[in-house]
Amino acid sequence: MHSPGGKVSGYVALMIVQIIFLVLFWLFVRYEKELLPPAIDAEDAGSAKEHVSKYPQFQDIQVMIFIGFGFLMTFLRKYGYSATGFTLFMAALVVQWSVLMKGFLHMEDGKISLSLENIIDADIAAAVPLISMGALLGRTTPIQLLCMSIFEVALFAANEYLALNVFSICDCGGSITVHAFGAYFGLAVALMLRPSSDQNEAGKLEGASYTSDIFAMIGTTFLWVYWPSFNSVLAEGAGGERAILNTFLSLAAATVTTFVVSALVSHENKLDMVHVQNSTLAGGVAVGTVCNLLLGVHGAVLIGIIAGTVSVLGYRYLTPWMTANLRLHDTCGVHNLHGMPALISAIASAIYASMVTVGDYRSELQDIFPAMVGTNGTETKIMGGLARNASSQAGYQLLGIAVTLLIAIGGGILTGVVLKYTSFRNLKKDEHHQDEHYWEVPAVENKEEYELERVDELLS
Amino acid sequence: MHSPGGKVSGYVALMIVQIIFLVLFWLFVRYEKELLPPAIDAEDAGSAKEHVSKYPQFQDIQVMIFIGFGFLMTFLRKYGYSATGFTLFMAALVVQWSVLMKGFLHMEDGKISLSLENIIDADIAAAVPLISMGALLGRTTPIQLLCMSIFEVALFAANEYLALNVFSICDCGGSITVHAFGAYFGLAVALMLRPSSDQNEAGKLEGASYTSDIFAMIGTTFLWVYWPSFNSVLAEGAGGERAILNTFLSLAAATVTTFVVSALVSHENKLDMVHVQNSTLAGGVAVGTVCNLLLGVHGAVLIGIIAGTVSVLGYRYLTPWMTANLRLHDTCGVHNLHGMPALISAIASAIYASMVTVGDYRSELQDIFPAMVGTNGTETKIMGGLARNASSQAGYQLLGIAVTLLIAIGGGILTGVVLKYTSFRNLKKDEHHQDEHYWEVPAVENKEEYELERVDELLS
Amino acid sequence: MHSPGGKVSGYVALMIVQIIFLVLFWLFVRYEKELLPPAIDAEDAGSAKEHVSKYPQFQDIQVMIFIGFGFLMTFLRKYGYSATGFTLFMAALVVQWSVLMKGFLHMEDGKISLSLENIIDADIAAAVPLISMGALLGRTTPIQLLCMSIFEVALFAANEYLALNVFSICDCGGSITVHAFGAYFGLAVALMLRPSSDQNEAGKLEGASYTSDIFAMIGTTFLWVYWPSFNSVLAEGAGGERAILNTFLSLAAATVTTFVVSALVSHENKLDMVHVQNSTLAGGVAVGTVCNLLLGVHGAVLIGIIAGTVSVLGYRYLTPWMTANLRLHDTCGVHNLHGMPALISAIASAIYASMVTVGDYRSELQDIFPAMVGTNGTETKIMGGLARNASSQAGYQLLGIAVTLLIAIGGGILTGVVLKYTSFRNLKKDEHHQDEHYWEVPAVENKEEYELERVDELLS
Repeated sequence: MHSPGGKVSGYVALMIVQIIFLVLFWLFVRYEKELLPPAIDAEDAGSAKEHVSKYPQFQDIQVMIFIGFGFLMTFLRKYGYSATGFTLFMAALVVQWSVLMKGFLHMEDGKISLSLENIIDADIAAAVPLISMGALLGRTTPIQLLCMSIFEVALFAANEYLALNVFSICDCGGSITVHAFGAYFGLAVALMLRPSSDQNEAGKLEGASYTSDIFAMIGTTFLWVYWPSFNSVLAEGAGGERAILNTFLSLAAATVTTFVVSALVSHENKLDMVHVQNSTLAGGVAVGTVCNLLLGVHGAVLIGIIAGTVSVLGYRYLTPWMTANLRLHDTCGVHNLHGMPALISAIASAIYASMVTVGDYRSELQDIFPAMVGTNGTETKIMGGLARNASSQAGYQLLGIAVTLLIAIGGGILTGVVLKYTSFRNLKKDEHHQDEHYWEVPAVENKEEYELERVDELLS
Repeated sequence: MHSPGGKVSGYVALMIVQIIFLVLFWLFVRYEKELLPPAIDAEDAGSAKEHVSKYPQFQDIQVMIFIGFGFLMTFLRKYGYSATGFTLFMAALVVQWSVLMKGFLHMEDGKISLSLENIIDADIAAAVPLISMGALLGRTTPIQLLCMSIFEVALFAANEYLALNVFSICDCGGSITVHAFGAYFGLAVALMLRPSSDQNEAGKLEGASYTSDIFAMIGTTFLWVYWPSFNSVLAEGAGGERAILNTFLSLAAATVTTFVVSALVSHENKLDMVHVQNSTLAGGVAVGTVCNLLLGVHGAVLIGIIAGTVSVLGYRYLTPWMTANLRLHDTCGVHNLHGMPALISAIASAIYASMVTVGDYRSELQDIFPAMVGTNGTETKIMGGLARNASSQAGYQLLGIAVTLLIAIGGGILTGVVLKYTSFRNLKKDEHHQDEHYWEVPAVENKEEYELERVDELLS
Repeated sequence: MHSPGGKVSGYVALMIVQIIFLVLFWLFVRYEKELLPPAIDAEDAGSAKEHVSKYPQFQDIQVMIFIGFGFLMTFLRKYGYSATGFTLFMAALVVQWSVLMKGFLHMEDGKISLSLENIIDADIAAAVPLISMGALLGRTTPIQLLCMSIFEVALFAANEYLALNVFSICDCGGSITVHAFGAYFGLAVALMLRPSSDQNEAGKLEGASYTSDIFAMIGTTFLWVYWPSFNSVLAEGAGGERAILNTFLSLAAATVTTFVVSALVSHENKLDMVHVQNSTLAGGVAVGTVCNLLLGVHGAVLIGIIAGTVSVLGYRYLTPWMTANLRLHDTCGVHNLHGMPALISAIASAIYASMVTVGDYRSELQDIFPAMVGTNGTETKIMGGLARNASSQAGYQLLGIAVTLLIAIGGGILTGVVLKYTSFRNLKKDEHHQDEHYWEVPAVENKEEYELERVDELLS
């Protein structure tokens, strides 16, 4: 059935990775100066306090990553151990890797300074491979997933550096650098791992049970509730509060729209849990890049309505089409929850950027659009130099999403090729979407199922 | 079985409501001035910071509304999609409506200023129709529920304005304006929708399964844990910390009492999950109106003990009586969790108000009992004028609850009549308490149930 | 089958306890001065604000206690009502008792001053009997559990006073005073309640179902996410932020290690949910005592790797050995999650303490190791006086854990004897691990099970 030997070498490799992380932490990572005990006559503990003021938002994001993503993916009938467990495994690996990778890009004197900010960034980075995991859910081994996540996060860090520091785009809630990147990377991997034409039908366990759907609602609801924290955590001052309000209202509008559109397009006008679990959140993605801008409240509501509509229609029409025609099985529909809403967000950011004036943004222009001011304190080399005008900034926003798509899809194709054609074990069709190949599953369950099957025979 | 056409027009109506909201946001709502970027040489970002200091409590309340209420109502065996889904739908609709409705009552220059405070208020307002939904759970269509919520929230906003701004009562945790209003409004609707005498027995799916009861405990526990945030979010300074402590201790005392009384009055002295899921929370409701007063710690504990006792006895004796004699089916027992404990809170507020002295409340008197000081900064026209004495304030507390009951019950009766006798589709008895009339339900579940039924036949 | 009478007297006793608490609150507990309304011309509300700055962390800990512990213990197939319900019951009782007990040790003018700090301490104290409950899960009556918790918390408060105030050890995250105490107390009780040799096999319901394992992951994940708050809540300034970072990284490293080691040592290299649910958290325990020290980031990661490894190996080899040879049934494996990791933490604290220098800790030395400075502001009589050197402090750390073990095991044995040989009713073997002896269980469930059993017969 399967070779335990293959598993062993994969797990051993992951342990070696963990030990390499240990060594890298030893060699390169130090507490930030403000985290060291102050001199006895020092007065100022301001910096530590300032970091810690973001601690509640950090904890909200932690819940999103570990509970939100983990439980959202429990919707599959027999894949709940993997959904919650591999989320935990992947996030625990990635947060360490992200501290190192993003640290290497911002070293001082050859050392990485560690503070709460780094682990906030690490949690955000963990979202990226978790989004990709959604596109692959149930069709890879855990070893494949984990190896993918290591490569993906390195590429994500490079692309994020390019988008934010070189192109100098605005992306407050990370819709471009996190959501679009994670979604299209995962979809590209899924395309590479696509089944042969004769195995293109849905897996026999590729669906929800009544209970698993309710477990998934735990994920949905926590993601919904804490999304304003995700979008606003990196914003400053008044922009942070605008990010909270815009995200909240966009989510609310997307939710109402999702229910209505779901009922209108579904069979017998019944609501579809897949839409409710996912498309309600599309408002949070679609407002992400622009959430701290001066959208106007109606702007946020309008974006939410559009995102909810596009997302439900995507689930209803586009996903089945992609499965049938491209053999692209997007298990969780990340294209509808993360991919298309992120594109909406990128387009919105170009539109709003093209309307920016110094008179509107005043002292926040430096923070939000640093390339639009004449001088800045940073020493980063920004592409095209400073003092951009508004339409130029809009152009860079579009460049940002274009390059992100290119790198994500390119990287995903490469990763997919590696996962498929090198020595990684690939799951067979009948091993898809079930825990029991990688988990001890309670015997009593099997007994119940066995009985039901026997009853089936008996009654048929 | 049912007419999809009816559904379509209902959902389309809700979409139109969402679009009307969009237009109203466009016309009337603006970011508060402090949320706009400050001038380049400005120093003060104090106001935005002050709002945001309530952000963690806001997030706690979000969890209560979306997870707490949503999962508490999953206790029904086959109504979990509706419980979690309609909670999300209703709350997303109501928060937008509440921002508008409450905003219209406090406009400046014809515009509503939006800040974090407005969405805190909106979340609190969302609790009102969710409480009412508990009284109706499983016996209405989603269209009925949503339409009810729109009307109810408008009436709630008016009654709250009357109670707080005209009668000038204290109601820090909202037991009068939120809990009593929501509970008695919902009960009045339930009374109007009561079944005919020959259909008064409990629905065949009106009960829990082992799994659904544990899902409901997710709701209970999050409500328990975050209730101090709900009660204290609108209190200031020292009063806020007293609100936290009093709520926490009242909940703890109510919980111990609930377990004991549940065991003592139940069949074979076994604990009843209905009591544990609900009456443990009665301490939070019963201390709500008075939570920021100088109760003394023992006062909070005593209120908790009384609330736990009354609530369990209500579930055990009063609810069955109301069902049998009034044909009032209070599915979640909101009368026992919200209704009676809110009455206890109102009575407690009259008692404590009658003992208020300037010497005790000092600088907080202005905040907590503004009508008891001689002069105030507000321009609100307070009924009876300022400089009330303590027994007069006590009288107004009782007036507040009386008027609230009147408006809630009157409004509920009216709403019930509209839902029953106009063109709204009403559920038939055998459609009660099940998701499948409004949701796509996994086929495999039906298969299992089908098998179990067949086994039943086979074995009988 | 069982005598309701026995239950009644137990519950009545608990009600009397609640009423005694009410009286003690009345006589001894007052709001702290800063919680009283300030004089009208006062300016300073600083103190109340400072307390309240810890409120978000308090709420995180609340989630850990009520959701985290409660749901972690739902992993048993038919014990979910008890896991979530008795957690709520026990925590609600213990928080009140802890406010009183710990208050009596720190009275001023014969009164206990109540503020947010007291209920933070109370929540931490509630963890202690909940840990012990894990060692006994499913093998005691609720009355036994609750009575145990009252005695245990009193002893815990005394031991904590001894360790922190007399021996003056550092124990920021409570691994010694909370985790080691709770675990070894519970194990000692379990040893006393051990079955006779002919009844030593596992209970027929002593295992998980597919659904109950996913419920348990709710507990695991919330404990994981909020553990940094538990460990850091009592730390100050920069030490608080170090505690957050060290705990986070230790958890991440323990998690990766847990998955790898679980796969390597388990049957067919499949992952074991017991390990994933529990050993992933061992990193939080093992770093607890030292989390605010200058570990270096790699120190935290190394501790996590060790803790994950030891914990999984404990579940795989030690627990079965203890069950077979000592008849010690540690249902949740608290020895592997809390016991051994806490010993690791104590040893680590001795190692790090032996390396402390004034030059490193500077102004924080007073806070973290008060007995190592020459003079201090406290009037507490510290054993051995002040101005300890580093190796002497290391010795006291070891003394702290040794005395804790002694008191916990002694107290546990005594408690076990009382629970077993006095008039408490003990569960019979076939009553273990099931809710139905103390809870109303839905009839429909029984029906399903009944059917499955009949089918079993039919098919066999």
